[in-house]
Amino acid sequence: MMEEFFKVMTPAAVLAMKERFSRVETEAVSLSEALDRLAGADIVSPVDLPGFNRSVMDGYAVAAASTFGASDGSPAFLTIKGSIPMGAVPEFDIRRSEAAAIATGGMLPAGADAVVMKEHANAVSETELEVYKPVAPGGNMVGANEDFEAGGIAIARGTLLRSQEIGLLAGMGLTSVTVYRKPLVGIISTGDEIVTVEESPPPGHIRDMNTYTLAALVRESGGAPVNMGVVPDRYEVLYEALAEAVKDCDAVLVSGGSSVGARDYTKKAITALPDAELLVHGVAMRPGKPTMLARSWHRMVWGIPGQVTSAMVVYMIMVRPFVQHIGGYAGTEPPTVSARIARNVPSVYGRTDFVRVWLEADPSGGRPLAHPVFGKSGLINTMVKADGLVAIDADSEGINKGDAVAVIRF
Amino acid sequence: MMEEFFKVMTPAAVLAMKERFSRVETEAVSLSEALDRLAGADIVSPVDLPGFNRSVMDGYAVAAASTFGASDGSPAFLTIKGSIPMGAVPEFDIRRSEAAAIATGGMLPAGADAVVMKEHANAVSETELEVYKPVAPGGNMVGANEDFEAGGIAIARGTLLRSQEIGLLAGMGLTSVTVYRKPLVGIISTGDEIVTVEESPPPGHIRDMNTYTLAALVRESGGAPVNMGVVPDRYEVLYEALAEAVKDCDAVLVSGGSSVGARDYTKKAITALPDAELLVHGVAMRPGKPTMLARSWHRMVWGIPGQVTSAMVVYMIMVRPFVQHIGGYAGTEPPTVSARIARNVPSVYGRTDFVRVWLEADPSGGRPLAHPVFGKSGLINTMVKADGLVAIDADSEGINKGDAVAVIRF
Repeated sequence: MMEEFFKVMTPAAVLAMKERFSRVETEAVSLSEALDRLAGADIVSPVDLPGFNRSVMDGYAVAAASTFGASDGSPAFLTIKGSIPMGAVPEFDIRRSEAAAIATGGMLPAGADAVVMKEHANAVSETELEVYKPVAPGGNMVGANEDFEAGGIAIARGTLLRSQEIGLLAGMGLTSVTVYRKPLVGIISTGDEIVTVEESPPPGHIRDMNTYTLAALVRESGGAPVNMGVVPDRYEVLYEALAEAVKDCDAVLVSGGSSVGARDYTKKAITALPDAELLVHGVAMRPGKPTMLARSWHRMVWGIPGQVTSAMVVYMIMVRPFVQHIGGYAGTEPPTVSARIARNVPSVYGRTDFVRVWLEADPSGGRPLAHPVFGKSGLINTMVKADGLVAIDADSEGINKGDAVAVIRF
Repeated sequence: MMEEFFKVMTPAAVLAMKERFSRVETEAVSLSEALDRLAGADIVSPVDLPGFNRSVMDGYAVAAASTFGASDGSPAFLTIKGSIPMGAVPEFDIRRSEAAAIATGGMLPAGADAVVMKEHANAVSETELEVYKPVAPGGNMVGANEDFEAGGIAIARGTLLRSQEIGLLAGMGLTSVTVYRKPLVGIISTGDEIVTVEESPPPGHIRDMNTYTLAALVRESGGAPVNMGVVPDRYEVLYEALAEAVKDCDAVLVSGGSSVGARDYTKKAITALPDAELLVHGVAMRPGKPTMLARSWHRMVWGIPGQVTSAMVVYMIMVRPFVQHIGGYAGTEPPTVSARIARNVPSVYGRTDFVRVWLEADPSGGRPLAHPVFGKSGLINTMVKADGLVAIDADSEGINKGDAVAVIRF
C-alpha cells in the first residue's frame, strides 16, 4: 500500500507547505463591515492627521520660547491676543510674548508651537497672562502630520483591522476599504453512522457535529464556511461531493473516515481529484495522526479525523494557519497565554501531543495554572471544559508540574 | 460646583456598580447564528450523548473479563460471533469468550463493555480470535451517556458559545438556542470641531473617529452599536440626542467634551435626563479621569473622553465589563497575556495608569517582552502600534524592567 511509503510528517513540516497555496483576491467593503477583516493592500493615508496643529490641553497657545525661564517667583508676562473658538481657524498669529486662549482640540494660530496648561498660568486681566512654568516646543499639542502623514503607509497589507484601525480609516475619510475576500471553505462530513442535526438518530447513529464545529472554527479564522452536507461511506458519493466542492471552494475539509477502511477510500477519493497531489498523509501529532492534505489544481483539500475533538485540534493546529494564509493574514503564531502546568503530563517521544487544559487565574497576578482536563479524549465535554491547548514537543517525554507552558486559547 | 464634592473613584469601585444594571432579555437564534453569543438559559441536554455504547477504536467488542490475564505468551482465545456494520444495531449479544469485529464509531453489542484494539489481537480464522493484551472495562469505548446525560445541564447560562459548544448543540439536536439578545449601545460623538467621516474637514476640524472605533469595540463585546451621529457643542442639541438615545438603547456612550467647558454641559445634559442619577464623575485612572457614569431609569449613560485613544482605553477598561454584564456574560476578567516589561515605566501614586505596549515573542518560548509604545498619548498611531494595555496599580510608583505584567490584549 502506498501509505507505507508515505512518511509521517512533523507539524512544522506541514505548516511550511502553506506557501504552496496562494492568497485569495481582494474586494472592497464599507467601513462598517471592515472590522476583523485583513487589509488587502497597503493603505496610504490621503491626508495628514490630525491635519492642523492641535491643542491637547485647555490653556494658552504660545511661542514656547516666550515661556523659557518662567517660574512661580518669576513668571513670564504675555499679552492675550484673543481666544480661539473650537473648530475655527485663528484670525491672528502669535508672536513672541503673545498668547491665545485655546481649548483641547482647538487649532493653534500660526507662530504658536506649544500650549501652556491652564493650571500653569493665570490671566490677571483680559489681556495680561502670567505663566509660571516653561513649556517645550511641541508641548501639549500635536503637529499637523504628527499622527499620520499624507502619502505614508498607514496600514500595511495583511493587517487585521481592529477597532483602532477602523477609527484610523474613519479619521482618514476612507469609507470603503480593500480587504481580502473571505476564503470559501467547503465542509463535508462522512460516515454511515452520521445523521444531520435535524434528524433523530436511530440507534447506533449520532448527529453530525463536525459540520457545525468546523464551520464555527472557519468563521473564527476569517473564512466563510460552505456546508456540503453529510455523505455516507461510499467512494462514489464522496468523490462526487469532493469534486463539486473543489470547483467552488478555496479549501475543502473532509471529516470522518475514523475507521481504517473509511480512511483508505477517503484517500482514494482525494487523490482521484483532477490534478491532485497528495502532500501530507500522516502527521506526528496526537490527536491528528491520520491527517491528510492534498492539492487539486490550486485548491487545498484536507482529510481530518471524524472524532469531533480530534477534528477540532487538527483544525486549530494545522488547518487554521492555512486558511488564514490564503485569506491574507500576515501574522504567524496564534497568540498564546503563558501559564504553568498544574501537574506532570507524560508524553511519547517523537510525536507532538496536544493536551486540553483549563486555566485557573493566579490571585497574586502571576501566570495562571493550566490544569489538564480529565476524560476520554473523544468526549466533546473535554473541549467544553477546556480553555485551550498545550503542545508537548516531540523531543520531550513529558512536562513536569510547574513548567512554563504556552496555552493556545480557544 | 457640584463636581468639587464628587469624589474621584477607583476603577474597581466603578466596576462594582455593574450589578446595578440588569441583564437584557433573551431571544432564540438558529444554531448557525449562535457562535460567540451567550447562553440565555441553562441548556439541558435532551438526550444522552453519544446515545449508545460506542467504539473509539478499530478492533473487537468483548466482555473485558474475557481478556484478563492475556499476554503474548498466553493469549485469550475468543470466538468471533460476527461483525458490526457502521451505523447498525448489533443483532446479537456478546457473552464471555465471545468477540465481534467493530470499527471506530460502531455500536457495541449488549454484553460487551470494552474494545480490544486490532493491534492487540489476531483473527486466526473467521471465527477464532487471539487476544494478546487485557483491556479494562470501558476501555476503547464511550458509554451511552458518558459524554452528556439526558436531563443534565450541558451548557450553563452566561456561557460564551464557542465552536465546541456549537458542536455540542448540534450533537444534542438543538437547532435553535436561547441566547441573550445583543445590548443596543447608542453612540453620540460631540464637538464643534468634529465632522462626519463622509465630509471633508475644513481647517481646524477633524473627522469623527470615535463613532467607528466605539462601534467596533461594542461589537467585540457582544453589543449592537447604534450610530446616533455627531452633535455640536450645544446643550439643547446634546440633551435631545441623549433623551432620544436612552429611549431606544440599553446603554448610551457620549464621547467628546474634551475641554472643561464642554464637559460641564455634558454632565448637565446627562443629569437632566429623566430619573437620572449620576453614579460616577471622575475615575482615578489615566487616561480616563473625566469619565462619567449615570443611570436614567434602568439605562446606563457614559460620558467618555473625546480623544480617540482615551475613549478606547476607557471603553476597554470601564465600559466593556458593563456592556458584557448587561449582555449576559458570566465571566469576569478579560483574558490577559503574561509578559515581562521591557523597560522601567514610572507612574503616579494614587492613580491606575494604562500603558500601551507591543509584544515581542520570546524565541525561547518564555513570556513575551512588553515594550511601551512611544509617542504622545493622543495619537491614534500609538494604538495602531500597540498589542495591548498594561495597568500600573494606583499603589505603585511604577514598574521596573523585567517585572511580570498582565497584558490586556486588543
